[in-house]
Amino acid sequence: MSVFFGVDYYPEHWARDRWETDAKLMQEMGLNIVRMGEFSWAKFEPGEGEFHFEWLDEAIALLAGHGIKTLIGTPTAAPPAWIIEKDPDILPVDSQGQQKGFGGRHHDCQSNVKYREHIRRLVTAMAEHYKDNENVVGWQIDNELGNSHEDLCMCDSCRHAFQQWLKKKYGSIENLNKEWGTVFWSQDYDKFSQIPAPKVTPTMHNPSLLLDWKRFCSDLVVDFQKLQVDIIKSICPHQPVTHNLMGLYDKTDYFDLASDLDFASNDQYPTGYYFTPPGQPSYEISACLDFIRSVKKKNFWMMELESGPTGGAFIGRMPRPGQLRLWTLHCIAHGSDTIVYFRWRTCLFGTEQFWHGILPHNGVPGRRYQELKDTVAEMVPVLKDIQGIVPKAEAAILFSYDQNNAIKIQPHHPELDYIEQVKKYYDSFYERNIPLDFISETEDFQDYKLVIAPLQFLMDAALEDKLMEYVKKGGRLVLTMRTGVKNRNNVCMGDMPLPGRLGGMLGIKIEDYDCPLGLTVKLEWTGTGIKDPGQEGVADKWCDIVTLGDAKPLAFYRSEYYKDTPAVTVNSYGAGKAYYVATEPDKHILGQLAELLREEAGLESLGESPKDVELTLRKGRARDYLFAINHTDCGQEVRIDRMWKRLDGCRENAFVVGGYGVNIYTRQSDAGQ
Amino acid sequence: MSVFFGVDYYPEHWARDRWETDAKLMQEMGLNIVRMGEFSWAKFEPGEGEFHFEWLDEAIALLAGHGIKTLIGTPTAAPPAWIIEKDPDILPVDSQGQQKGFGGRHHDCQSNVKYREHIRRLVTAMAEHYKDNENVVGWQIDNELGNSHEDLCMCDSCRHAFQQWLKKKYGSIENLNKEWGTVFWSQDYDKFSQIPAPKVTPTMHNPSLLLDWKRFCSDLVVDFQKLQVDIIKSICPHQPVTHNLMGLYDKTDYFDLASDLDFASNDQYPTGYYFTPPGQPSYEISACLDFIRSVKKKNFWMMELESGPTGGAFIGRMPRPGQLRLWTLHCIAHGSDTIVYFRWRTCLFGTEQFWHGILPHNGVPGRRYQELKDTVAEMVPVLKDIQGIVPKAEAAILFSYDQNNAIKIQPHHPELDYIEQVKKYYDSFYERNIPLDFISETEDFQDYKLVIAPLQFLMDAALEDKLMEYVKKGGRLVLTMRTGVKNRNNVCMGDMPLPGRLGGMLGIKIEDYDCPLGLTVKLEWTGTGIKDPGQEGVADKWCDIVTLGDAKPLAFYRSEYYKDTPAVTVNSYGAGKAYYVATEPDKHILGQLAELLREEAGLESLGESPKDVELTLRKGRARDYLFAINHTDCGQEVRIDRMWKRLDGCRENAFVVGGYGVNIYTRQSDAGQ
Amino acid sequence: MSVFFGVDYYPEHWARDRWETDAKLMQEMGLNIVRMGEFSWAKFEPGEGEFHFEWLDEAIALLAGHGIKTLIGTPTAAPPAWIIEKDPDILPVDSQGQQKGFGGRHHDCQSNVKYREHIRRLVTAMAEHYKDNENVVGWQIDNELGNSHEDLCMCDSCRHAFQQWLKKKYGSIENLNKEWGTVFWSQDYDKFSQIPAPKVTPTMHNPSLLLDWKRFCSDLVVDFQKLQVDIIKSICPHQPVTHNLMGLYDKTDYFDLASDLDFASNDQYPTGYYFTPPGQPSYEISACLDFIRSVKKKNFWMMELESGPTGGAFIGRMPRPGQLRLWTLHCIAHGSDTIVYFRWRTCLFGTEQFWHGILPHNGVPGRRYQELKDTVAEMVPVLKDIQGIVPKAEAAILFSYDQNNAIKIQPHHPELDYIEQVKKYYDSFYERNIPLDFISETEDFQDYKLVIAPLQFLMDAALEDKLMEYVKKGGRLVLTMRTGVKNRNNVCMGDMPLPGRLGGMLGIKIEDYDCPLGLTVKLEWTGTGIKDPGQEGVADKWCDIVTLGDAKPLAFYRSEYYKDTPAVTVNSYGAGKAYYVATEPDKHILGQLAELLREEAGLESLGESPKDVELTLRKGRARDYLFAINHTDCGQEVRIDRMWKRLDGCRENAFVVGGYGVNIYTRQSDAGQ
Repeated sequence: MSVFFGVDYYPEHWARDRWETDAKLMQEMGLNIVRMGEFSWAKFEPGEGEFHFEWLDEAIALLAGHGIKTLIGTPTAAPPAWIIEKDPDILPVDSQGQQKGFGGRHHDCQSNVKYREHIRRLVTAMAEHYKDNENVVGWQIDNELGNSHEDLCMCDSCRHAFQQWLKKKYGSIENLNKEWGTVFWSQDYDKFSQIPAPKVTPTMHNPSLLLDWKRFCSDLVVDFQKLQVDIIKSICPHQPVTHNLMGLYDKTDYFDLASDLDFASNDQYPTGYYFTPPGQPSYEISACLDFIRSVKKKNFWMMELESGPTGGAFIGRMPRPGQLRLWTLHCIAHGSDTIVYFRWRTCLFGTEQFWHGILPHNGVPGRRYQELKDTVAEMVPVLKDIQGIVPKAEAAILFSYDQNNAIKIQPHHPELDYIEQVKKYYDSFYERNIPLDFISETEDFQDYKLVIAPLQFLMDAALEDKLMEYVKKGGRLVLTMRTGVKNRNNVCMGDMPLPGRLGGMLGIKIEDYDCPLGLTVKLEWTGTGIKDPGQEGVADKWCDIVTLGDAKPLAFYRSEYYKDTPAVTVNSYGAGKAYYVATEPDKHILGQLAELLREEAGLESLGESPKDVELTLRKGRARDYLFAINHTDCGQEVRIDRMWKRLDGCRENAFVVGGYGVNIYTRQSDAGQ
Repeated sequence: MSVFFGVDYYPEHWARDRWETDAKLMQEMGLNIVRMGEFSWAKFEPGEGEFHFEWLDEAIALLAGHGIKTLIGTPTAAPPAWIIEKDPDILPVDSQGQQKGFGGRHHDCQSNVKYREHIRRLVTAMAEHYKDNENVVGWQIDNELGNSHEDLCMCDSCRHAFQQWLKKKYGSIENLNKEWGTVFWSQDYDKFSQIPAPKVTPTMHNPSLLLDWKRFCSDLVVDFQKLQVDIIKSICPHQPVTHNLMGLYDKTDYFDLASDLDFASNDQYPTGYYFTPPGQPSYEISACLDFIRSVKKKNFWMMELESGPTGGAFIGRMPRPGQLRLWTLHCIAHGSDTIVYFRWRTCLFGTEQFWHGILPHNGVPGRRYQELKDTVAEMVPVLKDIQGIVPKAEAAILFSYDQNNAIKIQPHHPELDYIEQVKKYYDSFYERNIPLDFISETEDFQDYKLVIAPLQFLMDAALEDKLMEYVKKGGRLVLTMRTGVKNRNNVCMGDMPLPGRLGGMLGIKIEDYDCPLGLTVKLEWTGTGIKDPGQEGVADKWCDIVTLGDAKPLAFYRSEYYKDTPAVTVNSYGAGKAYYVATEPDKHILGQLAELLREEAGLESLGESPKDVELTLRKGRARDYLFAINHTDCGQEVRIDRMWKRLDGCRENAFVVGGYGVNIYTRQSDAGQ
Repeated sequence: MSVFFGVDYYPEHWARDRWETDAKLMQEMGLNIVRMGEFSWAKFEPGEGEFHFEWLDEAIALLAGHGIKTLIGTPTAAPPAWIIEKDPDILPVDSQGQQKGFGGRHHDCQSNVKYREHIRRLVTAMAEHYKDNENVVGWQIDNELGNSHEDLCMCDSCRHAFQQWLKKKYGSIENLNKEWGTVFWSQDYDKFSQIPAPKVTPTMHNPSLLLDWKRFCSDLVVDFQKLQVDIIKSICPHQPVTHNLMGLYDKTDYFDLASDLDFASNDQYPTGYYFTPPGQPSYEISACLDFIRSVKKKNFWMMELESGPTGGAFIGRMPRPGQLRLWTLHCIAHGSDTIVYFRWRTCLFGTEQFWHGILPHNGVPGRRYQELKDTVAEMVPVLKDIQGIVPKAEAAILFSYDQNNAIKIQPHHPELDYIEQVKKYYDSFYERNIPLDFISETEDFQDYKLVIAPLQFLMDAALEDKLMEYVKKGGRLVLTMRTGVKNRNNVCMGDMPLPGRLGGMLGIKIEDYDCPLGLTVKLEWTGTGIKDPGQEGVADKWCDIVTLGDAKPLAFYRSEYYKDTPAVTVNSYGAGKAYYVATEPDKHILGQLAELLREEAGLESLGESPKDVELTLRKGRARDYLFAINHTDCGQEVRIDRMWKRLDGCRENAFVVGGYGVNIYTRQSDAGQ
């Protein structure tokens, strides 16, 4: 299989006589793939059933003449004006009951039957047209599903679909009433048709309804994608299908969404203007990349990688010299085998006219083109060696959209956020250059020496069993505050003290707790065998007050009425150990925990590095590649095993990485030995 | 009459086989009253006219078997889904014209005729059913009326009701036009039917319309309650009726609302998550309690007293050890004779599943149960002695919803708030342990040695006369900035310099004023006979510039172009004295004023105490009880007359009150002597 | 022509028997003009076609008896209730699709055909009635057009009008699609009727649509005014027509709006409560006054000048002693020949009852009356000498609503604002007492030695030619960052590097740029011949990275990856010089630039003065008048040519201006010599 580097290209935005120039410039840059067709519904079908693919055929052929293959995006994120004019109830409705207008993109209700008919007609025609085109190497469905759909859609169609979804789940209205506890505030329903979408109401909705609504919305998106996947799979069985996910974006369950795809893709804009300057922290980007690799435990495509400042009404920072290379290598290091830059050339018009491409508005190659051209040349040989070999970590974070949804509905503390807590745990290992995977509840925990499972707020017997089984067989498991509070229908457990049945394995019981609003609760790490015994820190957002059973304390609260009670505990259980973190500790205490866990679980670290400099490994057929990635703007030194040699042969200051630089070190691979 | 301690209990939330356990635990704790039935409309009437009271009958009987009486709440805050399905125009409409959805509580328009018919049918059936049940000791109407109704309802029904209300008030449209000054901006109406509810408009509404709208909304709530009061009173003449008020909440005029009740009740959540941590300041809670006692000049019930952390999406702090006892005694000290804790057991489901009860989710008594059990045992004998004896202060604050409404419509300064100013004056006496009552304009001022009347912005001849008569006969009266600016229809006075006719009594005239936005205006207290002559302070939010007539200055501005003009004045008038405070002074200057007023009015202080430690007196039949309440988390010393002895007999450090502690001191009562 | 001083007067707000008193007080104060009739639609026409002008006739006659003329305002900003009842679709709709309610003012859709019919009927009747009244000296159309209309109106009528406007502009839908680039996101339209008003949509609208929408809205307001101008002009050809503009308010293009007027008027409230205290900065007020003079290059009326604190719900600061005189003289100094104070007496009722007039609510003249009476007496002789002689500057700022609209749609940096940048340049000259005019693109640049043209974001060949021609012939031109980025349809230029064809004249090229979000980029001024070489400063909001052609650098960036590249450049071109400012510099660097430009362009400064003390010149027939205006609250000294003598004859400390004081200095005028 060839190695792909490419761009998102919109030939319809440019005069026909420019295409040839573009193709030549791409070829000279080393590119061999483009994504096209996304958002071009009105070009493909200017009127109902009038299909025009000839313009794209021409572009595909022209590019192929320069050795460039095409992946086609279905343009269903952009229903054209004539469709909205014909069926205006496709326009979505927000939680205030307000119908949004035409004029951006995804001004659509994804449950709308008429809209789906339009999609079926178009995508069928596209699939039929391109099924045998040898230059078409695959399909992307829609664009960033879920994006632009926050707070949408609560129209009658969606409300009805939600009621059907509930009927399927609960069977009878009596059962739903029981499971949701509608007896509270007289919310008993006589029939499913009485159940509302959670539009704004004078107080707050039932949290069970809200959780099911979030699940329904995710399922709706999955179903919306599946409509197209099914069409393409049945017509073009040999062309793979993907979708461009957005890292840790959480409107849709990506484990579900990706399960219908041949491979996952990802979009990443490190200096996106919507981030606090100077942009997304490196540990967050790394977490996103590891997560996307993890949704299918398979290497992925970068379908949109930033190639210039992003912009709508506001404009983000210009990538600094070196950053485009850095981002490319960063993605590859974490498991991306194909890089597609967004976009080829900065568009002259429309909402994204300041969402910059590699080429500036005037189309003349400049600094960014040159840097990426060099990067492609540098990385093609590396990718040939490593392509398809999936990075695999020894430890994993259990990631659950269900837990995230439940915590979003009731965050307890205004700043408590499931994904932020996940990222904090991730970061404590990232800082130590210990790789992590993400796993879903349905995967096999036994693949990992250590599983970190933050905020297991919703619980059921199956998950309890699975967690206990994992530890019993020798696993190391970290559970945190608010574990086991509720059942899967967002109803509190009423039969045992917290954390329920898991309390046995953890050797603890929780009979009191505190939401320390406006308080700084002191922590002290007291566990042994760690670098800095007596390390002090801070507990934030929540404090479970732990009664010890068989567990041993590792850290204590040092203030409030629960002063000197345990904040972190460990308990031996079967052949393994179960840890409980009763609060959200700051990075000092989490660092101590990570050190302890590394030791106890026997995890390998790739070396030591300063803050914001990471060490990440890709194994290859011939050699292994250690990427030392310096996300800061000045030179930094790394400490790695001296067996590693720099790929570029440089020997002087071989372990210093320049500002925004990446050093690649290699060694003979296990496979290659 | 027996002393009641109890809980809010929702047996319908729990399995039938748990009820017995609950009843036994309640009995063991010393409880003898529950409130039940509130919010259970769908259980009482699952379909139109199908009444089911048997479940509640059973609960009442079972509890009675454990010596526990029942107060029934009417569930009209929670119209069930079948009613909304049948009559969807019951759903309320906000100021944007947006109809709110079903799904929380009070998703209702209180003027809606169909909704009232539903209520009439249900409440009549309930009253008929329970009129002779000897275990039913009374009724609570609805729940926290006005709550959840901010910004609601502006539907056509309410608009029409408003127009009827206006017609009744003004008689003719010509009169309304004249009184409102609709000639401004061509807002003259030809008919009442043209008058809008104050939905959002491109600029701002006529302030006279806005004030009448606020009065109408209050009257609507009163009328809404009266519908049920009338039904119950006519069917169950021997069962008293109450409603759970919310301290200084201001959507509804509580003097009016309480006038239809047999006694007032109050809800108080000192660590409510909606307060800035660590919770509601103690002076505010004290003010709320004194206010609720004052609305009927009668002791009241705590119908909902916090028994655990509050919570919706966010969760408040856990009550610290000692706080539940403290809050109980705090309420009793200020005139609550019955304490009902909210709620018995933390609900497993629904919006309030983190609004904690005494028992945790798992139903096992813990720290909070034990603390309250001890508290009940401690307080029952005390309450037997003091029950029904109403605390009465020597000084009072004139409290007016009308003034509050008018200031809310036009706060002048963004931070000026009527209730906040009232609380500032309250606090200046509270800090000195001088008790205060609140009085309405209709009460007899002569009962008090001192009346403080902040922000008497709206004025009429009757109130002017009453105020002047009060002073003439020897009263001490404090008036403040912006007195007498407007008539009762929110129209400015046009015939005299400020403060109008009251200027004569006050011995001053105001010909200039300043809204010191962004300024810190210096103040200096210069009045004599006070501890700290020359006390400096700050004037905030407004500065009347006073021209002295016969009045004597007590404080001066010390900056701005009105530097060295008087900021506080006093004038002898008849047998009394009238004070004018031309600004909102900070606590230093207000403290000086309070000291002076104590001396001049001869007010008794109960002793001296550090900040956030209060001394509050309840008189009893046999003995008097002085509660020394320490709202801080560490020990504090109080200075009181050594005649007081500690009720618990403790003699060592008898005048030190522990953190979150309450010491009760007693002496022989006047009555008991 | 007589000199006018006057007030805005609403006799309909007061009892008939007060009118005489008011007229006498006005006359005593030296007033001789009133504006009346504005907002009085319901008085003029209480029912359709029932006209009542007799009350105003009476007021006009009574005032005339006291030597007071009348300017009539048409009351079309206040459609009465009966009109809204009859035609409720006159109510406007916001961007959420929400219809606003009746109850303030300008609750109207300006495109509504029925509303325009109502206006036509009323204004025709008014014009017919007053065409021959010799006491009526002119007309004001409506009130502050555009005010209250932010976010309005997106009703069907406006949407349709927008579509018509687009059809007229673009001719065919194909052309619109091409010009807007609707191919982006499949937004191609088949017909104009598909085009939306920019209601809220799930993402963002096409920026070309948004810019045309803003132009359409401005044109709609101009057209709305023209309806009335045409009626009055045709019926009352000898009575001039004006409108009260609002300085640099930007909803409507004032160059367009004023083109239909005989003279411009302005409203100014220096301590308006909506400004950050203590009020609007003096340089901003000066810029507004200079701008209003510039829209017609003609002296103007102050139609509403603050005469007391402003207020709605909040109240602004009271004018300090001296400020009313200062504001009056400030306006005159900048070209106002007539001053009308808002308002005569503070209204007792309605939304503006705290928008104070000269007289307080009780109607008794006080401090403000006295100060203004003295001011009128002082200024009448001066105005007689200077009236009609238009102040003219040697330098001008190019002001463009188009550029402002485009930058508002896409500000790049969250704090970048076209008008704020214009004001920053204005201030750098204002601080040096160098007068500026404002000019539109259509005016002759050759009238000025220097033209400053900030943020020429939208560009076309005609403007390029005009700018280059200006420099070629000897002009000094300042262009700034983001010049020439787009064409007039808000589409980016695609054919040349920035700044396009102007790059030749400027001697530079821009191939890279940075939006320094969260960064402080250092600057250093290095140009010679300036006071402080090496002056350091800061670059904000945007950094063009300049490649020098023939240009010479004047300042450099001193940080970031573009450290030591030029930030300000100059290039000789023909007989002139073209400057480029690649960023938004702070005032230190802008000050250096202003000093350089003064020298290079040979601009006259009126002298030196401390911050917030300005020197402004009005030339007269006999004498010239130099106003030294001290906007601070304490005495300040000015340095001017000693030939200037104080008008009041004062010789001691003749060059010290008291706090809030204005010294007038005179010399023989050129004309008078």
